[in-house]
Amino acid sequence: MKKIEVGLLGLGTVGSGVLQMIRNNEDKVANVTGSTLEVKKVLVKHPERHQDVQQTVKLTTEINDIVNDPDLQIVVELIGGIHPAKEYIETALRNHKNVVTANKDLIATYGPELVKLAHDNHCDLMYEASVAGGIPILRTITNSFSADKITEVKGIVNGTTNYILTQMGQRGWSYEQALTEAQKLGFAEADPTNDVTGKDAAYKMIILSQFAFGTQLGLNDFAVTGIDNLSAFDVHQASQFGYVIKLVGIARVIEDGVFVEVAPTLVPNDHPLATINNEYNAVMVTGQAVGDTLFYGPGAGGLPTANSVLSDITSVTKNLVLKTNGNFFNNYQRRYIPAPADEVIYPYFLSITMPDVPGQMLKLTQIMTDIDASFSQITQTEADGMAHVVIITHGMNENQLQEFKNRVKDDSTIKLGAAYKVLK
Amino acid sequence: MKKIEVGLLGLGTVGSGVLQMIRNNEDKVANVTGSTLEVKKVLVKHPERHQDVQQTVKLTTEINDIVNDPDLQIVVELIGGIHPAKEYIETALRNHKNVVTANKDLIATYGPELVKLAHDNHCDLMYEASVAGGIPILRTITNSFSADKITEVKGIVNGTTNYILTQMGQRGWSYEQALTEAQKLGFAEADPTNDVTGKDAAYKMIILSQFAFGTQLGLNDFAVTGIDNLSAFDVHQASQFGYVIKLVGIARVIEDGVFVEVAPTLVPNDHPLATINNEYNAVMVTGQAVGDTLFYGPGAGGLPTANSVLSDITSVTKNLVLKTNGNFFNNYQRRYIPAPADEVIYPYFLSITMPDVPGQMLKLTQIMTDIDASFSQITQTEADGMAHVVIITHGMNENQLQEFKNRVKDDSTIKLGAAYKVLK
Repeated sequence: MKKIEVGLLGLGTVGSGVLQMIRNNEDKVANVTGSTLEVKKVLVKHPERHQDVQQTVKLTTEINDIVNDPDLQIVVELIGGIHPAKEYIETALRNHKNVVTANKDLIATYGPELVKLAHDNHCDLMYEASVAGGIPILRTITNSFSADKITEVKGIVNGTTNYILTQMGQRGWSYEQALTEAQKLGFAEADPTNDVTGKDAAYKMIILSQFAFGTQLGLNDFAVTGIDNLSAFDVHQASQFGYVIKLVGIARVIEDGVFVEVAPTLVPNDHPLATINNEYNAVMVTGQAVGDTLFYGPGAGGLPTANSVLSDITSVTKNLVLKTNGNFFNNYQRRYIPAPADEVIYPYFLSITMPDVPGQMLKLTQIMTDIDASFSQITQTEADGMAHVVIITHGMNENQLQEFKNRVKDDSTIKLGAAYKVLK
Repeated sequence: MKKIEVGLLGLGTVGSGVLQMIRNNEDKVANVTGSTLEVKKVLVKHPERHQDVQQTVKLTTEINDIVNDPDLQIVVELIGGIHPAKEYIETALRNHKNVVTANKDLIATYGPELVKLAHDNHCDLMYEASVAGGIPILRTITNSFSADKITEVKGIVNGTTNYILTQMGQRGWSYEQALTEAQKLGFAEADPTNDVTGKDAAYKMIILSQFAFGTQLGLNDFAVTGIDNLSAFDVHQASQFGYVIKLVGIARVIEDGVFVEVAPTLVPNDHPLATINNEYNAVMVTGQAVGDTLFYGPGAGGLPTANSVLSDITSVTKNLVLKTNGNFFNNYQRRYIPAPADEVIYPYFLSITMPDVPGQMLKLTQIMTDIDASFSQITQTEADGMAHVVIITHGMNENQLQEFKNRVKDDSTIKLGAAYKVLK
């Protein structure tokens, strides 16, 4: 039986998981791919910290030991971050090594460039683990929707924020309380910025959009709102209306364009995304023919992510056996056209504070009338002489929303605390 | 660009959907596969009934027109049933045509034989649409869990029964009422036997087990219980305990064996499978590394099923371009060993009727004590001098359950109406 030798860059949680899974499932991999896999070398910063594996695998601190080793056919990049991961992958590809990576920042930012380099060198470049940890979503979109027109991909693609939001919703905690607890339990990092500002989810939506629509977006092409300004009051008000607030990434075909956004969003309690809790992720793919489908699983974690890395490694291995490496992971290509703002229509949850005096509500309803928008649900509560008005509107387009924000800004008495989209 | 010509057997709901999707998504298919697809000939019984497509495709009533046409590279079988579908597929494969089918009865029964024939003739044989209509579950198991050890596959894989059970649960209807309504709305066939007895779900579990565990089961290897004896009373009692009753197919690794069953099963309200309603299907795949994942989508219907057929057709097309046809759709093989009965442990829902007289409950508790089983929840209601006792037990193994059934049978006063497994 043919032996495929693998070089690993990085030996953190995911790297250790990959090493462990290759060993534990040797027979099944052999059964399925017709080859055996062996991790020959691992790039680490501190070899002395990995005494436990030193007997079975060669540890090295020198990247050239791996990318220049002619025996290695697959290089797995798990060090994360953009530099030097990008340069390592480039060298590996130029040396005709197939590459598997879990690096979403890198793929979202330099994906097309690296994909081209892989193709030019007749090598595979796969990155299933870069989106939604253990959910095999990229390969599924590529293989199982290839003849359908996908009209929307939306979902909960960040486990840290979903954990925080679940705790806020279920325990009535503030954002700060929930974040502290999440950090204590290891669901949030010491510096949670990339997660809580929505940047991590945005990277994933860039990759998902590429797979679903063939478009290549940049971080500046769409609006990203995190959960770091979400108030416990709004979470409570939403629940009174029958909704949970989730950080939802939406990528949706509207007219000839694509609308993409990451933002706190109200999800009705009976919607499949409403029951996705804690660190779990879910991606809903809607196809013109197939309708709604949903893929659910752990969004992060060493072994679930390692499993996605291994699905890439075994795909590369099958290609090595068949000598079919160098084809695109996903080769659907289409130009990105932003959706027209007046066709992006959603109901909104508006959270407003204003003095509790006669005439205020009239002002608010006047603005809504002027912009041709209307209320679906409204409640008013009072505290400290201020009125808290929470509204769910009927469908409004992006221009109407902007106009509403401008009008409220012009009025010194009305303060708009939040404006979140509402899913149906 | 290379043109791939396709022959279609059957032009019912799914066949028409396939024809329509190939035409509507011509550009995307070309973009993804690098080839154009053209349906050249369709086998139909009554050409006069398909005037609408006669202008664009050749209709024929003669199978040899298709299987002997040297230009056709893919034959898509959508006539259903075992004969003559089996013979048509065999001839097509012997004539070196790649075959795509949605025929679960055929694949569950003669899968290994047909798979071997395809392999011997260097042809593809794919059947994604044979399980769970629009959910791309087979390809996902093959591609995305190839290095993980799957420990369980369970789910709701029959849309007709799930529609009936949803209506019974939500409206308090009897089985007969719900079935009649389902037939009226087209969710159940005039003769619903295969669906309501669990046979259809059993076929799907055979195919899922093969993909998950590499085992080849027959219909006689495991217990199949339908919903045709389910009472509205038990559905109501289950809901009082916080459960919904679903027809669940389970295939689970226990010790060195595999336990497989299709039966009405109690699912807790907060379990992901509890919210799968009406004609929707969902399959939960649990891997040792990845943990719980769930795949949800329409379980039947012309276009969703056509989408799965097309994912096969485009996979075959990619293989034609790469000249890599003839590899197994799934080549994981392992001998089937039934799980030991005393290790198959579940809590049970027991629905019992007995005379409402002193000493009866003592008899029942004595039996439970004798077989070393215990109650977790119990309620007793009364009607017409009879006591209805509903119990949820702690975990019991299959031998204990059998012993309980035997003891109850020996006692002429205690009638066991139902014994359903309870999921956690």
